[in-house]
Amino acid sequence: MKRFITILAFAFMVLALNAQELANFRRVSVVSPEVKNDTVTFRLRAEYATDVKLYGSWMPSYFDTAQLRRGENYIWEISIPAPAPEIYTYHFIVDGVAMSDPVNTLVQRDGTRYLSMLLIDGERSQNYREANKRGSVSYVWYDSELLGLNRRMTVYTPYGYETSKKTKYPVLYLLHGGGGDEEAWTSMGRTAQILDNLIEKGLAEPMIVVMPNGNPGQQAAVTLNLPVSDVNYRDPANANAYVKSLVTEIIPFVEKNYRAIPKKSARAIAGLSMGGGHTTAATMLFPGVFDYICPMSCGMRDGENVDAQMQAIKNAGYKLYWIGCGTEDFAWPGTETMVEILKRNDMEYTLFASDGGHVWYNWRYYLNTFAQLLFK
Amino acid sequence: MKRFITILAFAFMVLALNAQELANFRRVSVVSPEVKNDTVTFRLRAEYATDVKLYGSWMPSYFDTAQLRRGENYIWEISIPAPAPEIYTYHFIVDGVAMSDPVNTLVQRDGTRYLSMLLIDGERSQNYREANKRGSVSYVWYDSELLGLNRRMTVYTPYGYETSKKTKYPVLYLLHGGGGDEEAWTSMGRTAQILDNLIEKGLAEPMIVVMPNGNPGQQAAVTLNLPVSDVNYRDPANANAYVKSLVTEIIPFVEKNYRAIPKKSARAIAGLSMGGGHTTAATMLFPGVFDYICPMSCGMRDGENVDAQMQAIKNAGYKLYWIGCGTEDFAWPGTETMVEILKRNDMEYTLFASDGGHVWYNWRYYLNTFAQLLFK
Repeated sequence: MKRFITILAFAFMVLALNAQELANFRRVSVVSPEVKNDTVTFRLRAEYATDVKLYGSWMPSYFDTAQLRRGENYIWEISIPAPAPEIYTYHFIVDGVAMSDPVNTLVQRDGTRYLSMLLIDGERSQNYREANKRGSVSYVWYDSELLGLNRRMTVYTPYGYETSKKTKYPVLYLLHGGGGDEEAWTSMGRTAQILDNLIEKGLAEPMIVVMPNGNPGQQAAVTLNLPVSDVNYRDPANANAYVKSLVTEIIPFVEKNYRAIPKKSARAIAGLSMGGGHTTAATMLFPGVFDYICPMSCGMRDGENVDAQMQAIKNAGYKLYWIGCGTEDFAWPGTETMVEILKRNDMEYTLFASDGGHVWYNWRYYLNTFAQLLFK
Repeated sequence: MKRFITILAFAFMVLALNAQELANFRRVSVVSPEVKNDTVTFRLRAEYATDVKLYGSWMPSYFDTAQLRRGENYIWEISIPAPAPEIYTYHFIVDGVAMSDPVNTLVQRDGTRYLSMLLIDGERSQNYREANKRGSVSYVWYDSELLGLNRRMTVYTPYGYETSKKTKYPVLYLLHGGGGDEEAWTSMGRTAQILDNLIEKGLAEPMIVVMPNGNPGQQAAVTLNLPVSDVNYRDPANANAYVKSLVTEIIPFVEKNYRAIPKKSARAIAGLSMGGGHTTAATMLFPGVFDYICPMSCGMRDGENVDAQMQAIKNAGYKLYWIGCGTEDFAWPGTETMVEILKRNDMEYTLFASDGGHVWYNWRYYLNTFAQLLFK
């Protein structure tokens, strides 16, 4: 046994010699961001830079920045009052070049960008941290005959899914916006953490969450070489392609391969922005499929056929029509139109009007809110 | 139907207004990296920078860099002969500050660092691109009583796993090195792509690959708040904790919750560096569990008890003892010792000696090589 320990000790010597590809990237121990007593301090070591600025998503405009000052050891620093509890993203601007915070391992991907993440604790953000009991997140491929592609989706299964061999679960289909992909809701949206926390606290039913890729020409986000489709999905003739695939391909795939309850009462659909458009379109085109309908930060345009489509949803029956939008969102007028259409069709709905605009801090907040109303 | 299309058209207007959190991050269309005719061009727009350099993992030393030159529109550029076919990582150094390439969406995480990725096509790297048929990658949590933590692991299930309801699969337990975590093999190691390609080409058996987190005090990589254990795992008394958890907790979890064949002949273990130490330790401590043993870039220290431990493995029986190491690796002398121990115990083994050192381009290559020998 003693020799065995010696062998292990050798293994740990090897451990000490770092297996990472990059050794000299980080030369000095810098802590950033540091949240302390309602103050956040950002730091960057920048030896030869002449100017270092900070941009954060809590700032009122994209044109705002804050100036860092150079201190000892070439470490630039700025302390600001902590913004309201939420998740924010930020970057440094070093001599005019935007870059992530190199010592912050918390990164969110928003489309093509990797953004440094900052969480400010508080009641509003309490479900964004990891819960004690956690579900699994899987990246799963399925064939879409309609779109002619093998495509990837992200699937959240709640804590206990692996071990509760017979339990069946309801499913939330959660759709991203323009510029997003099948990872948007887990990365920017903290879906797994929000659901884990809500389920652990008994505030939401255990559910499966399916997050497909809503760009119909795309197979998956951020891959090396997967060709995109050459179909023009901006052509109105193809406008429903993704929504049809969602209902006639993705739902059957999920209900076949997961322990999903294959019933209208166990299906919810929600989406933000473009995904909100997909949500209203899917329910209009397939009125008998979902009992829970939650468009966010999107609008509805009025027109002669709209009432007939809404009546079809009403006649098929639904349990929740939950609309989330920020009052400063450019989609707010469209949301008002949506509400008007629901009203005049004598359909029950919930309008959840929040502060702010077309931003992720609203969409996380909406998910955290409406998920508590599903499947009850 | 016409009105319906109008509604959809509105949804696509919303699409056009980008849902991304960051609008002004990328101000000009820059292509980087660009691989063309055996030349790679790197570009960075940097308006106020006075110096832009490039470091790439193909360079002989961490102290090497290449100088970019400023051209029109503040775009700095350098063209270099394409390095040999492989995956590399690189970063820019802008006025002394290292940063990722902001227009390259392909990113690998190596421990605490997000690195821009470059793939050079060729025979050696052909299995690093996405295959046509792809398996799923899942992040799954399990309870470790031995380590006192709920912990995350990454599980690859091969193409067809979801739909082949009754098929059972063999399992490769694939272990990372020091500084790595449960995402190292899927991110730096391209495990999913390598397995997808090998299986699609009929070169490897369809298999499940389980990639646990080999840092016994850690619950998961890159989380906001999960506490680490306060047990001192550098204390030799605790040296086997992770390996014991692997064999007595992770394997039973996998064989219970996945369609895994629960037999020695259907279990392989492989690991790099620290994970190679875990591989040799797990097989010495539990000689009857694995038929396929593949330590990489690690050593074995000789000692009085080693022969007895190796004889136990020999007596239990195994089908493959495959050792991979670069001849320039600091672990090479330890590998030579390992070979000597196997020889004098009259044990069959394969030594796969490659060029180069303690780097991911070797570990991807080794996986691509030994995976073809498993479960046959």
